[in-house]
Amino acid sequence: MPSMLADTAEKIKRMEIRGAGRIARAAVRALQEHSSSVQAGSVEEFREKMGEAETLLLSTRPTAVSLPNAVHSVMAALRRDYPSVGSAREEFSRACESFVIRSEQAVRKIGEIGARHIRDGDVLLTHCNSEAALACMLEAWRIGRDFTVFATEVRPRNQGLLTIGTLGEAGIPTNFIVDSAARYFMNEVDLVVVGADAISVNGAVVNKIGTSQIALAAHESRTRVMVAAETYKFAPRTILGEYIQIEERDPSEVLPSEFAGKFRNVRVRNPAFDVTPAEYVDLIVTEAGAIPPQMAYIIIRDILGWDIGDFNHGVSDRREEGKGSTRGPGSAPAG
Amino acid sequence: MPSMLADTAEKIKRMEIRGAGRIARAAVRALQEHSSSVQAGSVEEFREKMGEAETLLLSTRPTAVSLPNAVHSVMAALRRDYPSVGSAREEFSRACESFVIRSEQAVRKIGEIGARHIRDGDVLLTHCNSEAALACMLEAWRIGRDFTVFATEVRPRNQGLLTIGTLGEAGIPTNFIVDSAARYFMNEVDLVVVGADAISVNGAVVNKIGTSQIALAAHESRTRVMVAAETYKFAPRTILGEYIQIEERDPSEVLPSEFAGKFRNVRVRNPAFDVTPAEYVDLIVTEAGAIPPQMAYIIIRDILGWDIGDFNHGVSDRREEGKGSTRGPGSAPAG
Amino acid sequence: MPSMLADTAEKIKRMEIRGAGRIARAAVRALQEHSSSVQAGSVEEFREKMGEAETLLLSTRPTAVSLPNAVHSVMAALRRDYPSVGSAREEFSRACESFVIRSEQAVRKIGEIGARHIRDGDVLLTHCNSEAALACMLEAWRIGRDFTVFATEVRPRNQGLLTIGTLGEAGIPTNFIVDSAARYFMNEVDLVVVGADAISVNGAVVNKIGTSQIALAAHESRTRVMVAAETYKFAPRTILGEYIQIEERDPSEVLPSEFAGKFRNVRVRNPAFDVTPAEYVDLIVTEAGAIPPQMAYIIIRDILGWDIGDFNHGVSDRREEGKGSTRGPGSAPAG
Amino acid sequence: MPSMLADTAEKIKRMEIRGAGRIARAAVRALQEHSSSVQAGSVEEFREKMGEAETLLLSTRPTAVSLPNAVHSVMAALRRDYPSVGSAREEFSRACESFVIRSEQAVRKIGEIGARHIRDGDVLLTHCNSEAALACMLEAWRIGRDFTVFATEVRPRNQGLLTIGTLGEAGIPTNFIVDSAARYFMNEVDLVVVGADAISVNGAVVNKIGTSQIALAAHESRTRVMVAAETYKFAPRTILGEYIQIEERDPSEVLPSEFAGKFRNVRVRNPAFDVTPAEYVDLIVTEAGAIPPQMAYIIIRDILGWDIGDFNHGVSDRREEGKGSTRGPGSAPAG
Amino acid sequence: MPSMLADTAEKIKRMEIRGAGRIARAAVRALQEHSSSVQAGSVEEFREKMGEAETLLLSTRPTAVSLPNAVHSVMAALRRDYPSVGSAREEFSRACESFVIRSEQAVRKIGEIGARHIRDGDVLLTHCNSEAALACMLEAWRIGRDFTVFATEVRPRNQGLLTIGTLGEAGIPTNFIVDSAARYFMNEVDLVVVGADAISVNGAVVNKIGTSQIALAAHESRTRVMVAAETYKFAPRTILGEYIQIEERDPSEVLPSEFAGKFRNVRVRNPAFDVTPAEYVDLIVTEAGAIPPQMAYIIIRDILGWDIGDFNHGVSDRREEGKGSTRGPGSAPAG
Amino acid sequence: MPSMLADTAEKIKRMEIRGAGRIARAAVRALQEHSSSVQAGSVEEFREKMGEAETLLLSTRPTAVSLPNAVHSVMAALRRDYPSVGSAREEFSRACESFVIRSEQAVRKIGEIGARHIRDGDVLLTHCNSEAALACMLEAWRIGRDFTVFATEVRPRNQGLLTIGTLGEAGIPTNFIVDSAARYFMNEVDLVVVGADAISVNGAVVNKIGTSQIALAAHESRTRVMVAAETYKFAPRTILGEYIQIEERDPSEVLPSEFAGKFRNVRVRNPAFDVTPAEYVDLIVTEAGAIPPQMAYIIIRDILGWDIGDFNHGVSDRREEGKGSTRGPGSAPAG
Repeated sequence: MPSMLADTAEKIKRMEIRGAGRIARAAVRALQEHSSSVQAGSVEEFREKMGEAETLLLSTRPTAVSLPNAVHSVMAALRRDYPSVGSAREEFSRACESFVIRSEQAVRKIGEIGARHIRDGDVLLTHCNSEAALACMLEAWRIGRDFTVFATEVRPRNQGLLTIGTLGEAGIPTNFIVDSAARYFMNEVDLVVVGADAISVNGAVVNKIGTSQIALAAHESRTRVMVAAETYKFAPRTILGEYIQIEERDPSEVLPSEFAGKFRNVRVRNPAFDVTPAEYVDLIVTEAGAIPPQMAYIIIRDILGWDIGDFNHGVSDRREEGKGSTRGPGSAPAG
Repeated sequence: MPSMLADTAEKIKRMEIRGAGRIARAAVRALQEHSSSVQAGSVEEFREKMGEAETLLLSTRPTAVSLPNAVHSVMAALRRDYPSVGSAREEFSRACESFVIRSEQAVRKIGEIGARHIRDGDVLLTHCNSEAALACMLEAWRIGRDFTVFATEVRPRNQGLLTIGTLGEAGIPTNFIVDSAARYFMNEVDLVVVGADAISVNGAVVNKIGTSQIALAAHESRTRVMVAAETYKFAPRTILGEYIQIEERDPSEVLPSEFAGKFRNVRVRNPAFDVTPAEYVDLIVTEAGAIPPQMAYIIIRDILGWDIGDFNHGVSDRREEGKGSTRGPGSAPAG
Repeated sequence: MPSMLADTAEKIKRMEIRGAGRIARAAVRALQEHSSSVQAGSVEEFREKMGEAETLLLSTRPTAVSLPNAVHSVMAALRRDYPSVGSAREEFSRACESFVIRSEQAVRKIGEIGARHIRDGDVLLTHCNSEAALACMLEAWRIGRDFTVFATEVRPRNQGLLTIGTLGEAGIPTNFIVDSAARYFMNEVDLVVVGADAISVNGAVVNKIGTSQIALAAHESRTRVMVAAETYKFAPRTILGEYIQIEERDPSEVLPSEFAGKFRNVRVRNPAFDVTPAEYVDLIVTEAGAIPPQMAYIIIRDILGWDIGDFNHGVSDRREEGKGSTRGPGSAPAG
Repeated sequence: MPSMLADTAEKIKRMEIRGAGRIARAAVRALQEHSSSVQAGSVEEFREKMGEAETLLLSTRPTAVSLPNAVHSVMAALRRDYPSVGSAREEFSRACESFVIRSEQAVRKIGEIGARHIRDGDVLLTHCNSEAALACMLEAWRIGRDFTVFATEVRPRNQGLLTIGTLGEAGIPTNFIVDSAARYFMNEVDLVVVGADAISVNGAVVNKIGTSQIALAAHESRTRVMVAAETYKFAPRTILGEYIQIEERDPSEVLPSEFAGKFRNVRVRNPAFDVTPAEYVDLIVTEAGAIPPQMAYIIIRDILGWDIGDFNHGVSDRREEGKGSTRGPGSAPAG
Repeated sequence: MPSMLADTAEKIKRMEIRGAGRIARAAVRALQEHSSSVQAGSVEEFREKMGEAETLLLSTRPTAVSLPNAVHSVMAALRRDYPSVGSAREEFSRACESFVIRSEQAVRKIGEIGARHIRDGDVLLTHCNSEAALACMLEAWRIGRDFTVFATEVRPRNQGLLTIGTLGEAGIPTNFIVDSAARYFMNEVDLVVVGADAISVNGAVVNKIGTSQIALAAHESRTRVMVAAETYKFAPRTILGEYIQIEERDPSEVLPSEFAGKFRNVRVRNPAFDVTPAEYVDLIVTEAGAIPPQMAYIIIRDILGWDIGDFNHGVSDRREEGKGSTRGPGSAPAG
Repeated sequence: MPSMLADTAEKIKRMEIRGAGRIARAAVRALQEHSSSVQAGSVEEFREKMGEAETLLLSTRPTAVSLPNAVHSVMAALRRDYPSVGSAREEFSRACESFVIRSEQAVRKIGEIGARHIRDGDVLLTHCNSEAALACMLEAWRIGRDFTVFATEVRPRNQGLLTIGTLGEAGIPTNFIVDSAARYFMNEVDLVVVGADAISVNGAVVNKIGTSQIALAAHESRTRVMVAAETYKFAPRTILGEYIQIEERDPSEVLPSEFAGKFRNVRVRNPAFDVTPAEYVDLIVTEAGAIPPQMAYIIIRDILGWDIGDFNHGVSDRREEGKGSTRGPGSAPAG
């Protein structure tokens, strides 16, 4: 029977476990379970075996951002001295417990903070289907704010349908538009609210393709842009200059394979994300408070607890292969 | 049996005849045919009866731009003096013939001029499926230019499929992307080429929804934007302050009606066009040469031959009802 | 008894006759009266004597813009050939009559055209107390448009009080704000409507101090700026490089003289106008139609009828003395 | 006889004690006095009673920024352990003493630092009547810098008269201009120096209405903008997403009540402050050094000593009622 | 003995005759001389032979701008009807005479107009060694304006040394700086004055490499940019979409050949010109008056007298080969 | 025989020891040597004598940035308590050793981090001859990245020749251009890489004259700008408002003295550096990681270990005399 650790690692690898928050919590739960069962004759040996478990998990998705943040966060508990394996085990378990709780509360806290930026009469615009961004809107509605939302279609996977479902069910008056219509309506919009897949040390925000275009149009119209993101979205390895890899997904998402054959000399390009430079972002709302994007370094260092010394400088360059060749100002390093 | 005039008027009204160029030529052909059959005892009477025909045609689609431009252009022939009805009829017919030929040649001339702006190694981006914009690319390819094109999907009606079909068939290496990905690739792009549905007196370009967002991203990246447009796309009544009506099309284009029922509190907004301000356009290529957008007034006055005195000042305000309520800088007046 | 010509010249000089339109019409009326009474034995002599009258009038306010435009416009009638003094006199009188009528109708026509740019639900902002700008708003209200206006105080002479009086009386919901609050409310504003004191050949608009700041804030917010101006506000001598003089008015307008004595080392600077560069103006509405600011040259040449050959190149440089030393991009030449 | 604590609370409430610095020092003095007289049997009880005093003071002006900063700063002394009430009392008193001294020195230190940014030949522009901004100019003059200042009128309360009085008395050559003339002179200006009423976590600066317009014009002209502000102007609750409330003051400040009756359909809007986004601010000079605006979070956390854990998440939403509905990018959260 | 026509053609080809003005006048003089000696039995034959001479001259430097403008201008005289060869010859000679005189006066007129834009106390910046730009400064100095100039070095050919020689001799206080220092001093500069090698139909200005960088820095600082250019610098074929060829000159200008051998893997890129987009130019001063850059089309059509019908549409594409592959927005077509 | 301390001080003063890194290491080595030989009866006396040595070194080049950073860094070791002079000496020596090693490794680490921002197919542009910027490019080449570089000439001292020598020797395909051509090629460039002479607390980067112009052109083209700089380039005294002095070097660098005599009324202005505002910089790569420019304060405080309390507030104002009078936004304080 495979251990929970191996099983979790496998599921993350095969992307059965998806989503920054779920990956983070699953990895920590697996480490916690592993710590309770692993045999060790000394604190030193315990540390070593947990280190092996850490390595296993980190290898599953080298470019995920929340995974190393989560693992690093709880492994920090083992850097202290312990009188016995038992006490180390206990303390480690407590750290895991605490991480999971904080992670589960993160979205709710972000919602509370973000909701304060939404006022009666506001017109909002959101892109894609971010749990944290939705939390801000739902919480604002819950406490009685009266506003309307423009939600985009989000080609090619049409996540906008999920978003209008959620908003509409809650009773929030929602307008549904194609992605191209964002600038057309932008002069009516008071606040753009989006999530993030990753945030670079220089405050550049990696999010669903199209976000940077919307943020640009917002900036042109003096419309505020608020990003809602859990702290584990901040990518520590960008401090070392690594790029956040912009995945190019399957062409069939854009051009169904039955059609593709009809077109000669045509290649589908399907980047999943783009990079919004910090200058187009007014505020990032995290569970640790609202910050300007330039504070990303402080979040990585002081909240996530990374230190330049923690990194392995000889990090393999192979990991960057196959990355998209297009970057704008604010392109961002990877975790 | 209905006359060709009545028949054409009906077809334009029911939008069986569509497209700026086709509407223009059909209206002129109908006037030409009408002029050859209409009974008149004097030049004066001939003028009067042709004027009635003009009024009939103009009433079919009050917001089309090419229709009044075409009709006005040939009716100008009747403003001169004629010794007999026969000579007036003859001259009018000649004017109609000449208009139709120039109209048919316009796209080819635009292609020749626009092609000179495309160079070996260039990366182009186009949006929607403009005959004039395609002519520039096809002509450039024909004379041996080596370049590649990014073509967008163009939601909600996916005209991008037509575009990649045409480009790919011609052998031009073409990339197909969702509309949201325009800014992602913009730093690689050397030239944006688009068409126009209408151009305002201040050089603002009305074109397929999403064009203004692409032009904005091009401006941000110091990428040139070239608009290919026949002169009859310039909207004379914008000199009188009329807005070019931005049509909102059927919601089911965006959200199929079978889905719409599932969503509560959701309204689809489906503007067909947006307005690109002149400051984001480097050049407009017409069959009368390449011009900066600020020359729109000169095109309307000197090429289309409109004069401020030609207009009926008491133009009904009813025509503006139902217009979209959202405009940016450079919103534009109607024809 | 002084002639009407001398009397009018004196009144313009002493600024008893003020306002671009009133000066223009008074000068033309004086020329008309003079033409009917002046004794001349030949057309040549008639031309000569009218030329002396022209010179007298032009000397009264060398920096006014409408004065030379008006005088030049009617004097053009004398450049043609006439069989007799009587016919010249008659034709000249007709030209004067026609000028006065067109001038009187100009504001009404501007109102009709400008009103079409105002829509239901719009929020407008106006600065100072321009007759032409007010005409646009009043006409829009008259034909049933539903909108509200922000009007500024317009320090130091508080012309805003006149504006809110006129707007309020008409029933238009009006907000009154200090000049400094324009940017605060700009994100709510759909359209800025202002007048002009003079317009330079490059489309720069000279208007009440503060206008350029408001236009800048509008541009920052993607809010449209519409300038309402009679064609005689376009300054022909700017083609020759002359600056439009920015008058510095009396310090006591800003700091009442009874206070001034209390302040040591303090100097009041009181420029009456500033210069808005063409890039912040979307449209200029004239009685000859709406144009982009870059069409100023065409207005001067084709509507006002000036030709480079009309100008006296040796124009005295003394006239520029005492001008303010501060100019931004778009500073503008004088008439 | 009312205690000094109650008396101070009352005076702050009734706005007899005004100004960020004075409120801060008065509150701390009241707490100090209270600590010396309050009866307590244990350190715990002492803490409790002081906590009640803290609550009383904080309730007086829920939106002031300096008040919670000051109170929080000295109450921190009570978070440590003490062997006796006496020692706690003593330490608390020392903390209060130290706070007051630092507060009193803050403006002087800001003056010293800010003065180094003023050079011989500089032209400065200031808006409103900020003690800290004046300190920079007066100190620069004292150490021999040779410069001139443009000072605005500051409608509607004309605080500019105070400013030109102070500057002129010191011998500094000063120009007095209406608020609208700032852009006109901006190309001559080397440095804009203003104060702040509050600074948000994202570096947005809340200051006298008109400041943001001046900062925008400065940015357009590549003129530097320096904000002089004591650290207690940084608003900690903005980390929680609260807005800094923009007060709308009495209409009669703008339109004397005797006039108001004359105007129908007119409403005065009188916001006292506006929000300057961080991108228009080059430097904020505090008594703890010069920083870029994006360091606001660090000031709040490391200098003011706030921690996300310090905040009461359930902060009442009622406090935001009645706030102005207009915000630009960089609108800012409240304290 | 070679005819003057052949001789002139040869000298233009071998670049013994250089400079836009000199080429223009030499070609016209050669045509004039040719017209006086050519044998023709009829006006038709005369036209034909002159047409051959025209063709010969135009073939010498296909990318010059002033050459076709000059030749086209005088050949227009032959489009009219003449009773005899003698009268055609006479009229043609008069047209040539007149062209040469206007050309010789152009720089002086530009100087007169441009000088009015220079005021006491101004700081100017100029780049390269333009006769027309110098004329503005020298004339301003002659009429008593008091100003100083920053002149750049103008690598790689150091034409700045000529400029400071001319300015300094005239007594104008001149600062000499490296090209890289333009932005450093730009905040002190009131007006940038440069010449042009060619101007495109959309107002883009082709001038010495580095000009566009200076214009960009001027725009960033709200400093005005004035271009001084004779009307024959406007490139008519840009209306047909042709690019103005940006010549890449010999590497040895940048890296002396004796050095070049020392460097491996190094290639010198030496473009002689760059393209300044119209949005960075406030005014173009021509001998026909000051205009905004967007008026280029009008200059080409109304002053230079070109008509779209004049052009040979089948213009060979070969002429664009070898052009530089780098263009920014505003890259411009060739003549 | 002069001590190594005195000798080093002299060499730094006479600029025999140059370059930020070399000065820093030489000063620390001299302090280390001095600490090993200085006689002291107590830790207190040891501290005092080392303090005298510190003062001597700091006085040699009051405006260098790396010198006080280095000295301050090692002197921090003496602030702790020691049981004996010997142990203090030992610890101090260790601190010096460690500083020198870290300094020597800094460039290598910057190279490793910066190299990750360079990708296959990239086009880079560099200005001047920065060791740290070169390290990024050389390391990227070493690990197999395939890219090309544009390197500028760098007038007036032509350091570009050193740069193309180094790049070319390494095999990197390099283009050599005059400084003025940067904008011409910028649209082809993916990444600008430059070094820094000093960095201000607000992230403004002081570097070789011309850098700010290139960064501006990069920003206009949405091209990323990466600054490579060791942490000791961050200028701590800018927190106190001091300007970083922009040195004006000898005129003969620009205009050889043999030429200078030929020019009347001409003055050479030769600033060695300019200031690039933070908004044009995407990332600063230091040996402590990549950061946004706004993190400069954190580097100064947390990495360099300066505290506001460390500074002598009464710092002499004389040091600012003779500074250049021209500053843009982002002008920066001195060290």
